[in-house]
Formats: sequence, C-alpha cells, structure tokens
Amino acid sequence: MPSPTPFTLEDFAHRMRRAVEAASREGLDGLVVTPGPDLVHLTGYQPTAATERFTGLVLTPETDPLLVVPALERPDAEAAPGAAAAHITDWTDGRDPYAAVAPRLRPHGRYGISDGAWALHLLALQAVVPGSAFTALSESLPMLRAVKGADELERLAAAGAAADETYRRILDVPFAGRRETDIAADLAALLREYGHSQVDFTVVGSGPNGASPHHEAGERVMAEGDMVVLDFGGLKDGYGSDTTRTVHVGEDVAPEAREVHEVVRRAQQAAFEAVRPGVACQEIDRVARAVITEAGYGEFFIHRTGHGIGLTTHEPPYMVEGEQRELVPGMCFSIEPGIYLPGRFGVRIEDIVTVTEDGARRLNNTPHELRTVS
Amino acid sequence: MPSPTPFTLEDFAHRMRRAVEAASREGLDGLVVTPGPDLVHLTGYQPTAATERFTGLVLTPETDPLLVVPALERPDAEAAPGAAAAHITDWTDGRDPYAAVAPRLRPHGRYGISDGAWALHLLALQAVVPGSAFTALSESLPMLRAVKGADELERLAAAGAAADETYRRILDVPFAGRRETDIAADLAALLREYGHSQVDFTVVGSGPNGASPHHEAGERVMAEGDMVVLDFGGLKDGYGSDTTRTVHVGEDVAPEAREVHEVVRRAQQAAFEAVRPGVACQEIDRVARAVITEAGYGEFFIHRTGHGIGLTTHEPPYMVEGEQRELVPGMCFSIEPGIYLPGRFGVRIEDIVTVTEDGARRLNNTPHELRTVS
Repeated sequence: MPSPTPFTLEDFAHRMRRAVEAASREGLDGLVVTPGPDLVHLTGYQPTAATERFTGLVLTPETDPLLVVPALERPDAEAAPGAAAAHITDWTDGRDPYAAVAPRLRPHGRYGISDGAWALHLLALQAVVPGSAFTALSESLPMLRAVKGADELERLAAAGAAADETYRRILDVPFAGRRETDIAADLAALLREYGHSQVDFTVVGSGPNGASPHHEAGERVMAEGDMVVLDFGGLKDGYGSDTTRTVHVGEDVAPEAREVHEVVRRAQQAAFEAVRPGVACQEIDRVARAVITEAGYGEFFIHRTGHGIGLTTHEPPYMVEGEQRELVPGMCFSIEPGIYLPGRFGVRIEDIVTVTEDGARRLNNTPHELRTVS
Repeated sequence: MPSPTPFTLEDFAHRMRRAVEAASREGLDGLVVTPGPDLVHLTGYQPTAATERFTGLVLTPETDPLLVVPALERPDAEAAPGAAAAHITDWTDGRDPYAAVAPRLRPHGRYGISDGAWALHLLALQAVVPGSAFTALSESLPMLRAVKGADELERLAAAGAAADETYRRILDVPFAGRRETDIAADLAALLREYGHSQVDFTVVGSGPNGASPHHEAGERVMAEGDMVVLDFGGLKDGYGSDTTRTVHVGEDVAPEAREVHEVVRRAQQAAFEAVRPGVACQEIDRVARAVITEAGYGEFFIHRTGHGIGLTTHEPPYMVEGEQRELVPGMCFSIEPGIYLPGRFGVRIEDIVTVTEDGARRLNNTPHELRTVS
C-alpha cells in the first residue's frame, strides 16, 4: 500500500495556531509541550525517548513558536516536517536549557504542560518562572488533538481498513484445539502484514476469559462451543486502529449466546446512530447502555462505551457518563459496548467512528453478525 | 551461565531504610519514587511502562514504606521481590490515587521525587499537600544508588566479563571492506550471546568518524590503516556493562596513531591508580586530563572522564570537574579518557572500575595494548 501524503509545514503551523487559540479559550497563557504524542501532533518531531535532557515546544499568543532541543539532537529536530514552523534553539550539556524558555513565560502566568513531562523539567520551570501555575494538558486542554483533519482521517481510515482485513483473515484460521496466545500471534502478524508498524493489543478472550474485559490472551485451549472476544489494534503510518468482534467456535451456537450477541449488536448500532455534532459525549454512552439495560443485562456492561483514537489508541474524547463536552465534526472514537457474564462468556463489538457534518461514518466496516469459526 | 543469586526481601528493606536515612541527611522529609531505576532499586518492581496511572513508593522516617499501585497492576506489584517490605495499597480507575499518598506527606514538607515522574502526578501531589516543596532526586539525592552492595557488584562484574568476551571475539572478525554497522551488529549479537538482555549502544567509529565521540555507527566501509573506536554495552541480569577499546585495521600502524593510543592508555592507567576512598570525583578527571594535556593533546579531550553505572549505563557519580563529592567503597563508574583529532581519527579506552577499601578494582580486564584486526 502507498504511504499517505505527508503532512505539510502549513498543517503543523495551523495546528500550533489552533493550540494557542484553544489554550487562550481555556484561560491558559500558553503551552509547554514535551516529547510524546502532543509534540508529534504539533511538530512531527519524535525524539527516540523522553530523557533528562530537556526538549520542549513553547507556544504563547504573543510570540512565535519556540522549540528548545539539546544541541546533539538539533539535526533530528530540524528534519521534522513541522520544525520550520517554530524557531529552534539548542543548548549544550552543562548549560541551562530552561533559560531559553523562561523569557517566553510570564511571572504568575498559567501554563499547560504535557502530562508526561518529567518532574525534573517541571520543577526547573516552576523555579525559573516565579508564581507560575502549571496544569497537566489532559486536564486543562484534553481536546487538543481530538478533532482530526482530513489528512488524519485518511490515515485513521487506512488503519481501520487494515484491521478489517485482519479480521476477515482470522475467520479462516482454526480456533478449536489452539491456545488464545496462538490466535493473538496470528492477529499481530496480520496487523503487521497489513501495514501496522506497532501492535498495541491483541485480546483473545475465550469462554469465561471473555467475561473479563482486561484479559489479554492466555494458555487456554479453545474448543467448540466457545464464544471468543477478539479486540486488536495498533499504529499504521502513525495513526491508530482498534476493533472488536466476537466469534463462536463451531456452528452450534447456544440460544443465549446468540441473544446476548444480538443485544450488543443493537446497542452498538443505536449508539452509532446517535452520533452527530452537538451531542454530548455521555449521550453516546447512555444510548448504548439503555439498549443493554432494557434487555436485562445492564449490570454486565461494566465499562465506558468508548474512547478517542488518533496518534495513540486511547485518548480523549471519552464516551462516558459525566463527559458533557459536545461532539464536533472530525472527532474519532470507539463505540464498544459489551456484556460480560462472569465465569461464562463475554461479547463486545467495537468500531471506530468519526463525526461528520450531519452524523457519523464508520472507519471499521466488517459485518456485525455473529460469525462462526472452526 | 547461571543466574545470579536473587536479591532478598532484607536487601530491599535495607535499601529503603538507607534511602530514608540519606534523605534525612539531605534535609528531605521523605521520598516519592515512581517507576524507573530508583523503584527497581528499592523494590525490584518494574511496571511495563510509566503511564498516566499513578504508581509510587512513599518513604518517610515516621511511617512504614507505602507502595501505591493501580488495582489492575496489584498482582504484578505483589510479585516483586521487595514488595513485602512495603505496605501495598491500590486504587481503581475513577478514584483518586493521590488521596492515599497525601496523609503520608506533611504540609510544608520537603520531598524528593523521581526525575521521570510525570508532570500529571507531580502537579496532583503539589495540589494535595499544601505548601510542599518537591525536588528532583537527581539534584537532591544523586548518590541514592551510587554505592553498590556486594550482590550488585557481582552482577556488574558478570556484565563486565561478558563485555570482555565480546571484545575478545570481535578481534577475530574481519573489519576491512565491511561497514561500521556490520561490526555494530556483530557486537550486539555477541553481547546477547554472552547473556545481555538489552544492548544500549554499539559505537563503531572508524577513521574520521572516531573523532566524533557521539558517532554511533554508519555506512562507512573500513579499510587498512583505519583506527576504529569500539564502545559497547547494555544490561545483563539487570546491571550494566560499558567498555571501549580502539583497534587498528591492518598491521601497519602509523607512528602518530600509536603515540596517541599510548597517551590515552597512560591517562586511563593514571586515573585508575588515583581511585581510592575519600578522593573527590573531579580528581579522577583531573588526573586523566593532566596526562593528556602534558602530552600536548589537552584540547582534543572533549568530554568528562567517566560516569557511574548500575541499573542504568549512565548515572551518578560523574568524574567531572566541579564534582566534589568523594569516592566511597562500592561506587562503580567508567574511566574513559579519549583524544579526538577532527577529520582524522579518535582513540578512547574505557574500563568500569569499583572503589575498594584501599584503591580500585577493574570490572573490565582485557589488555589495553593497541590490537590490530584484519
């Protein structure tokens, strides 16, 4: 498959401007963004690791973007596709990296900082900017990366299509007599075959293991009559996939398994149909939960209905009771209701969807009907 | 090779007590230790990754050690060899992990926190403990892990011996006509063959590339007449190796290359002989630098003389001008002077050494004489 069109310098410049505007709306005087998905989003720059050497992007309304990097890593930073949208300054070992940041931050100002910034760096910034108040970006600006651009949607759709191909292929694989970990390895190999550079999870929950949403994959050998939850995803060209289907081993499906699967299918469909701009995130959770509760399984739906996806496979927005923020076109998230019957089996169906101008579009498109495997 | 004797519960309990005592001596009211080498040192516990879910060990003089973990990860934490030396408490998603920490910390108290603790967690702790002052552990307690116990020295010696075997074997490998990256791959494979679970670096700096101490390994094809800096190491049974030798491709060594190598060899030897308890770290740097300066190459020795090693391959103590802390028996660090002639070649010789009661012992023991390769 061809690589996606690269993000342009203007894409990154636009994201930086949008981040500053969003920060101002939240009452922040600026942002300090350290290595991680926020920095990738804003500059395309991803150092090998977050380390004791300070790297940070400083965004404020009054000044041009400033990227501070260790001198040794300057060539890497300059090669990032969004680097030219910021002024780059470097510091050498033994010199003070925070001295370059301090003049950009106002005493008694209020700034957002990346969740994963090292304490070492935050403490130094607090010391050089008297009276400053920092807040974690996940709390002060959780939706920074939530609305995706068209070029990001293209990547998320491609990742979803790759996950769909993985699901189609796994249906032809033998399940009975093999361990969950064998199927998990098959899923990982298929995701990579279809272009994933990173596999984040390959859940294979068979029989009673499917009733534990946090079960990954174990030594259990599958047999005819098992329901099997398959939940897998990772990163392709830097953007995430995440889909779940529940299959049955053998043709002879018990009526209860079929019924539970159908309830989950209807819940997923109802939630999907509820997605449109202006709806509160919690409403998506409520719609899915109502279907399951009305069918008498409410107590067995023990997690939120969905999470955002983008440069990571779990991020805001969250489809959960209490999240009153409204859906906006371009947001991408999972809809993944489930029913978990302790000691017996579980069912979950999950698609990634994106909000459109008047509704929603699925980025996973394999059928929801209960499929049997051999 | 057999695995080393596991650390005992009493080993970890002793380390926790020693850390509290060291913190008190530095005027700290306690420590908050998050995932990373400090937590491994104190508890043997290493979560898969540092994440947005808070995990932390709280040590104060007044209370027993407390390890706060996410409920999902409690079984992993309990399985750690030092876990039973702390009281473990867990928190479930949606609840406040910092509420468990707050009662242990005094308002207006002064606490050390791991360098790599997430800003998200530090900001939350600052909010729940009014008037608290946090400092990064690398600044307030840099020597926390610097003095190694006998059981740690055993592991560091085994890692050093594995690196020595790697060097002996690489001497039999052809260099001329091959790329630096080929030799780097050979070094990595040998380190793993001799028991390393992780390879941190495999520097192969041939000809002019050897004059850049930060060069890793590139596409340059080596030829007769090249000097080649080989600097490699990683982790074996959780402890680090790091050794450097400089070899010559072909038998016909230019007089200047031989002379520069001999100067570096004498500098390394002089610094080794200067090591004994009570000597300031900077003195080791001064001794090595004096030899090189007297030989007329002072301006070409462009880095510090050494760094500590243990659970990581770079940590305090640093053998550098300005570091006035004194050497203590059990400290382990590199002695690695070098001379770098821009555009021509470089020479570095590095051994890990440990401070004994009356001097020093090398943990690398391959000869320092200039060896030729084919």
